[in-house]
Amino acid sequence: MEGGQYKPLTQSDMVAIHNAALEALETIGLADAPPSGVAHLTGSGAIEGADGRIRFPRALVEDMLAQANRSITLSARDPAHDLELSGNRVHYGTAGAAVHLVDVASNSYRECGVQDLHDAARITDVLDNIHFLQRPMVCRDITDNLEMDLNTIYGCCSGTMKHVGTSFTDPAFVAPALEMLHMIAGGEDKWRERPFVSNSNCFVVPPMKFATESCQVMEACIDGGMPVLLLSAGMAGATAPSTVAGAITQAVAECLAGLVYVNAVKPGHPAIFGTWPFGLDLRSGAMTGGSGEQALLTAGCAQMHGYYGLPGGAAAGIADAKMPDMQAGWEQMCSNVMAGLSGCNMIYEAAGMHASLLGFCHESLILGDDIIGQALRCVRGIEVNEETLALDQMREVCLGGPGHYLGTDQTLSRMETDHVYPTLGNRASPKEWDELGKPALVPNATLRKEAILAAPSRARFDPVLDRAIRERFTIHLPE
Amino acid sequence: MEGGQYKPLTQSDMVAIHNAALEALETIGLADAPPSGVAHLTGSGAIEGADGRIRFPRALVEDMLAQANRSITLSARDPAHDLELSGNRVHYGTAGAAVHLVDVASNSYRECGVQDLHDAARITDVLDNIHFLQRPMVCRDITDNLEMDLNTIYGCCSGTMKHVGTSFTDPAFVAPALEMLHMIAGGEDKWRERPFVSNSNCFVVPPMKFATESCQVMEACIDGGMPVLLLSAGMAGATAPSTVAGAITQAVAECLAGLVYVNAVKPGHPAIFGTWPFGLDLRSGAMTGGSGEQALLTAGCAQMHGYYGLPGGAAAGIADAKMPDMQAGWEQMCSNVMAGLSGCNMIYEAAGMHASLLGFCHESLILGDDIIGQALRCVRGIEVNEETLALDQMREVCLGGPGHYLGTDQTLSRMETDHVYPTLGNRASPKEWDELGKPALVPNATLRKEAILAAPSRARFDPVLDRAIRERFTIHLPE
Repeated sequence: MEGGQYKPLTQSDMVAIHNAALEALETIGLADAPPSGVAHLTGSGAIEGADGRIRFPRALVEDMLAQANRSITLSARDPAHDLELSGNRVHYGTAGAAVHLVDVASNSYRECGVQDLHDAARITDVLDNIHFLQRPMVCRDITDNLEMDLNTIYGCCSGTMKHVGTSFTDPAFVAPALEMLHMIAGGEDKWRERPFVSNSNCFVVPPMKFATESCQVMEACIDGGMPVLLLSAGMAGATAPSTVAGAITQAVAECLAGLVYVNAVKPGHPAIFGTWPFGLDLRSGAMTGGSGEQALLTAGCAQMHGYYGLPGGAAAGIADAKMPDMQAGWEQMCSNVMAGLSGCNMIYEAAGMHASLLGFCHESLILGDDIIGQALRCVRGIEVNEETLALDQMREVCLGGPGHYLGTDQTLSRMETDHVYPTLGNRASPKEWDELGKPALVPNATLRKEAILAAPSRARFDPVLDRAIRERFTIHLPE
Repeated sequence: MEGGQYKPLTQSDMVAIHNAALEALETIGLADAPPSGVAHLTGSGAIEGADGRIRFPRALVEDMLAQANRSITLSARDPAHDLELSGNRVHYGTAGAAVHLVDVASNSYRECGVQDLHDAARITDVLDNIHFLQRPMVCRDITDNLEMDLNTIYGCCSGTMKHVGTSFTDPAFVAPALEMLHMIAGGEDKWRERPFVSNSNCFVVPPMKFATESCQVMEACIDGGMPVLLLSAGMAGATAPSTVAGAITQAVAECLAGLVYVNAVKPGHPAIFGTWPFGLDLRSGAMTGGSGEQALLTAGCAQMHGYYGLPGGAAAGIADAKMPDMQAGWEQMCSNVMAGLSGCNMIYEAAGMHASLLGFCHESLILGDDIIGQALRCVRGIEVNEETLALDQMREVCLGGPGHYLGTDQTLSRMETDHVYPTLGNRASPKEWDELGKPALVPNATLRKEAILAAPSRARFDPVLDRAIRERFTIHLPE
């Protein structure tokens, strides 16, 4: 599915953003690189200032742009779910670090744990329009950080055959995580051939500072053959400029710094250009992800990825609404469809996210599959050719024909190929709806959730592997 | 607010649609024109065939396109609400012929009446983002058709100072309606100077037949100085081809025929190019307005209006959902934001419409104001200039500055100018939301509805005029 029909920025807007980002890198630079990063970056031509900031000459950025990997495949345990990130190809998935599970039955929030995360993985595995699972929730029930990181991988990978994204709280945790991933893959060589987990890496603390430890995590992941999502998550009005253009510019500058870093460590290592600026409600100073400004931030970023021809990602589909209500529907659709139409390769946070990323909701994830299915239909666009223009059909129908198009071969064939039907969205007439007992959206999503979780999972590890993992690591999910 | 950043059709797609439409007009033509229409059309160069169909030579269509009115102002009783239809200027409003009112409190549908219509007008009058009121509901409690049409005008105009759209069931009803409008305007000359009501005219019965009586209504409206909405409402897969491109082509052909008709009657008479193809759920044969296909139909049509440089309108914002739930939110946002981004001048059915146009909901109208406010923020787009790129600010903040953008002058000023805040959409954190007693969206919309309807109305006719209207016509609304 290729987007790009929607272009919020003109060509000269993009050039202006690019030039401003280069100037920021050249004159402001980034502070707080770890010693290893300073070595890699200065070794490539970056300049360490007396103020400790690393500045990036324009030519260095341009050289690194030239050697960056432009066609990344994110592998999945099941190759049918591999994601090819190139051009304007669009993929939607989860992401985030929610600390609450949204419980629709009791209209309340509670702390989330590894079982909730695993359930989200299992649900994602069967939803056609959720293309990958980046860890959407933090395992709040695991206090040890190493165990949390490892159980996050276990909980995700044992729940879905799709590509998984995760993060690490400490550089030292990458090695044991790789050990687990080698076991799941059936050996280090098999892992390196098809790394099915990527590292979501907040390598930068906006504005314009490297996140020292995360950079060390990144180096370890590069070394271990793990694709990296270079994630710059500024908040427009707090840690990024309050204007949409300014927040995009800073995110682009920061991700270009990350791109130089990755390619200084290992030229061509797969890295996703993760400009994720978020919106802020300037009245309260709190984050807001469901706004029109958010949709513009994301779509503008996606266009900048296209400007560079780099595989990129951004956040969309976030609801500020606390529950899967009408507000959640309009918020999730607005940024999701605009991100898709702008041709964003990886659309993160696309389903299930509520309360401006603080809560994750399984029912909303399930309903998000309908939302994204519809967004993808819009991305697919309008097919114009002699057959679809339908002049011959029009002639047949109007001149001596039946005067309508019902039941024509063309209509019947289009029913299958052109149209997308919602799974839980209801199109019944008021009369039918009444006769069906007024089916309600969210309770039906709960029923579907229960059915999915009651069915056997194809992603489950085989018993021998599972025993081996559980012997080597402390796994909190019950067997 | 100018759209146009989203272009679902390429230039060659538009040329192909244009050529197919011209060929359809030349070779298929339209049946069932009234005798007066046949005279006007053949007098201008159209050809009446032995089969009774009127065919339109290419040169005729091109000539009429050249003389069509390209810059229409739709007047409102309050000039502050005048709508200038040119370029990609975007306006949202209601429309439709719903036969039910959606009662959210009892989760049910009931027949709607003139009081419901009047209430919709009063609510529309105070909502910033609902720019006009086309009659969204039929007065089912008025059995006499003439009284129904006249009470529709009374109910709308006495409820809002914004532009009103309506239709007529019989050509003979136009004269008494104009009489009422002259009274409201304060004389025929004042009415003709600023006609604040337009005629929503289904001049065509797709595929490719004139609606004989509606054409006579149209002639009477043109004569009375009333702007006309040329409304072609084919159903893709039933009364229009099942492909998105084919349905757009037929709608364009039909509206071009209408445009020739209007300009044959009175060159330059204000007419809105109303390509309104609707989607069909091909599984059930029932209409569906909340789909991605619908959003594409509407956005593609808007681009064709731009291709011709004609003021145009189409339908968006329709929910198939029966209640204002999450489905309604995603359906209403999808087509509304895409219609706006495609630069549609008049976006009809944009708020309040449920059950694929069968039901109208006051609460949903109120929540639609938030949806459209957000869509308009997206249409406004990303402002890129030296100030918004914020390089100076970035430098100040990062180099010896506070390291964040909170409370800077630029941030504070953007808070007012750049950001759109929802009225009922809730952005509180889970904790605040809990402390506030978990405010719920739809009940809050009901409270707002009650407050609006309890307040005095600025649109109310002055007592002398009201008495005069009530003496001359049977008015069903209580005084």
